[in-house]
Amino acid sequence: MSAKQPILVDLKFDPDTVARILKTAFPDRGSINLADPANRDRDLTGIDYALLWKPDADLFSRAPNLKVIFSGGAGVDSFMNLPGLPDVPIVRFSDRSLTTRMSEWVVMQCLMHLRQQHQHDKDQRARIWGKLVPPEAAEITVGIMGLGVLGQDAAYKLKVMGFNVIGWSRSRKEIDGVETFDSGQLDDFLSRTDFLVGLLPLTPETTGFYNAALFSKLRQGGALGKPVFINAGRGKSQVQSDIVAAIEGGVLGGASIDVFAVEPLASDDPLWGLENVFITPHDAAVSDETALFRHVERQIARHEGGEPLQFVVDRQRGY
Amino acid sequence: MSAKQPILVDLKFDPDTVARILKTAFPDRGSINLADPANRDRDLTGIDYALLWKPDADLFSRAPNLKVIFSGGAGVDSFMNLPGLPDVPIVRFSDRSLTTRMSEWVVMQCLMHLRQQHQHDKDQRARIWGKLVPPEAAEITVGIMGLGVLGQDAAYKLKVMGFNVIGWSRSRKEIDGVETFDSGQLDDFLSRTDFLVGLLPLTPETTGFYNAALFSKLRQGGALGKPVFINAGRGKSQVQSDIVAAIEGGVLGGASIDVFAVEPLASDDPLWGLENVFITPHDAAVSDETALFRHVERQIARHEGGEPLQFVVDRQRGY
Repeated sequence: MSAKQPILVDLKFDPDTVARILKTAFPDRGSINLADPANRDRDLTGIDYALLWKPDADLFSRAPNLKVIFSGGAGVDSFMNLPGLPDVPIVRFSDRSLTTRMSEWVVMQCLMHLRQQHQHDKDQRARIWGKLVPPEAAEITVGIMGLGVLGQDAAYKLKVMGFNVIGWSRSRKEIDGVETFDSGQLDDFLSRTDFLVGLLPLTPETTGFYNAALFSKLRQGGALGKPVFINAGRGKSQVQSDIVAAIEGGVLGGASIDVFAVEPLASDDPLWGLENVFITPHDAAVSDETALFRHVERQIARHEGGEPLQFVVDRQRGY
Repeated sequence: MSAKQPILVDLKFDPDTVARILKTAFPDRGSINLADPANRDRDLTGIDYALLWKPDADLFSRAPNLKVIFSGGAGVDSFMNLPGLPDVPIVRFSDRSLTTRMSEWVVMQCLMHLRQQHQHDKDQRARIWGKLVPPEAAEITVGIMGLGVLGQDAAYKLKVMGFNVIGWSRSRKEIDGVETFDSGQLDDFLSRTDFLVGLLPLTPETTGFYNAALFSKLRQGGALGKPVFINAGRGKSQVQSDIVAAIEGGVLGGASIDVFAVEPLASDDPLWGLENVFITPHDAAVSDETALFRHVERQIARHEGGEPLQFVVDRQRGY
C-alpha cells in the first residue's frame, strides 16, 4: 500500500484531551479516533498501525491487518488477552517524562513514610507540636521489584536521597551500586526489605503476587519497626484484601497504592481509610498524550525507514 | 592547665536523650550537663570548651574563660546575642546526617507541592477518585536561598529529581549546573522562582526577610499557577502574619514551614489550618546527639593537635 494510512487510536484516557491533541498529531497521515461516534462503523481493514489502551473487545476483528501495535502505556496488559491479537510487533510506551513522573511519585512516597508524614499531618490537623526523630534514609532498605527503565531510574534517585537500595527481577540484572536478586532469591530479597516498591508488569506470574504470604516475609524490626508496601505497577498484581489485613494486623506499617484491580476504587473500599496508607488514583505516572504521539511517530518513522522498532514487547514474557 | 577539663554542655534539646547519650560521650574528659540540677552551682570558671544550644542567659558570665564555643546546630543565632560572648572561635555543627535529613525534608516538601499531595490527601479523606495531571519537576524552578553545605546538597538532589534549580546567596557562589545570583540580583532571582526554599542563617539582615514585599516578587503564573514558600532556615527570618496574608490573598499557592519565631507554634496560630500549608515542628533536620558529640570530639582533637578548627563562624557575617 503506497498511501499512508491513518493511525487507529483507541485510548480510554480522558477523551477530550485525546481528541484535542489528536487534532495536530500525525500531520502526514492523520488518525481515526474510535472515541468519535462518527467512526463507529468505519472500515478498518486497511489500517496498519493502532495505538491502544483498554481498546474495545472487537478491536482486532475490526482491524485484522495491523502491522504494528503501540501501547498507550508502559505496560501492555490492557489488550494482551483480547481475542484476535495478531502476531505483529507490540511496542510499549517509554518516555523520559513518564519515567521522571514515576520516580517523583516513588521517591515522594518513600520520603513520606520515612519522615512519618502521616503522623505530622495528623498532628497538624490537631494543632499538636509533635517533634519526630525518624531514622535517616540510610537506615532504610528499599527493595524494588521490577528493574526495567522505571525501576532503574527510581533506584538511582532513591540512592541519591540516601536510601539503601536493593533490586529484584525475574532474571538477574546488574545495576551499579545496587545489590540485585533474581527469582530464585525472592525470600532473601524480601527478608532484607523495609520498603517494598512494586513496579512489576502484569503477567500470569505477577497476578495476585503481592499477597499475605509475601508481606509476611518482609523485614520486621527494621529502623521504622514495620515494613511498608508501595505499589505503582499494576493493581491486579496485589491482593487488596491482604493489604487491608496486613495493615490492620500489624504485618505492614503502612502502604502507598496508586493502582487497583478495579478502577476507580469503590468509595466504600476499606483501603481509603486505613492508618498510614496513601492512596493516589492511578496518576503516579500519567501518560502525556503529546509525548505518546511523538513516540509513536518516531517509531513509525524508524520502522518505515528500515530501522528496528524500539521497546518491543517479548510476547513470551508479556512485557 | 594540663588536666583535661570536662566539656560544658547546655543544650535545650530533649533532656533525657542528651543525658543518656552524654553518659558514654567524651570518655577522656567527661562533661558537665547544665540540665542536671546537681550542676546548678558548679564552678565553671576553669572550663575550656562549651557546647551550646539556647544556653542560659548567664552562661558566659559563669564560664568566662572558654577557649572554643561549639554550637549544637548548623546556626549559631541561639547564643550570638547573649551578654559576655567571648572573642573565641565559634564552631557550627556540620554533619553528613544533618545535611541528609535536611535534604530529605526539602525534597519531600518540593515533591508534595509539585504532586499536589494536599489535594490527594483531601480526596482520600473524602474517598474521591480525583486524578491529577500536575506539571513535571522540570517545569518548576526551585530557588534556594542560602548556598552553604545544606543549600548545595538540596540543590544537587532537587536537580537529580528533575527540578530546575537556581540559587541565591549574599556573595555569589559557583555551583555546577545551578544558575546563581547574589545580593544585587535578588529581584531577578525571585521573579524566576516558583518554589522558594529558605535555608538562610538568622542574622540582622535576614530577620523579617521573608515578608509580603518579597512574596509579591515571586513568579506568578508558573506551571502550578502560584509560588510556594518553603522555610527550614530560621523562624525569625519570616514574618508569619505576611505568610498567612499571602496564602489567604492568593499571592502564595502554598507553603511548608518547619521553623517559627516562637516555638512551639501556638495552637491557635492560623498557620496550622491554612489550605496547602504543611507544618512540621522544627524537626526537618534534628541534630543527632551522637553525631554532634563525635563532631565536637573530632574538632577538639584537631585543635589540641595543632590543626585548624573546621566550620568556624565568621563573626562579622554571623554564620
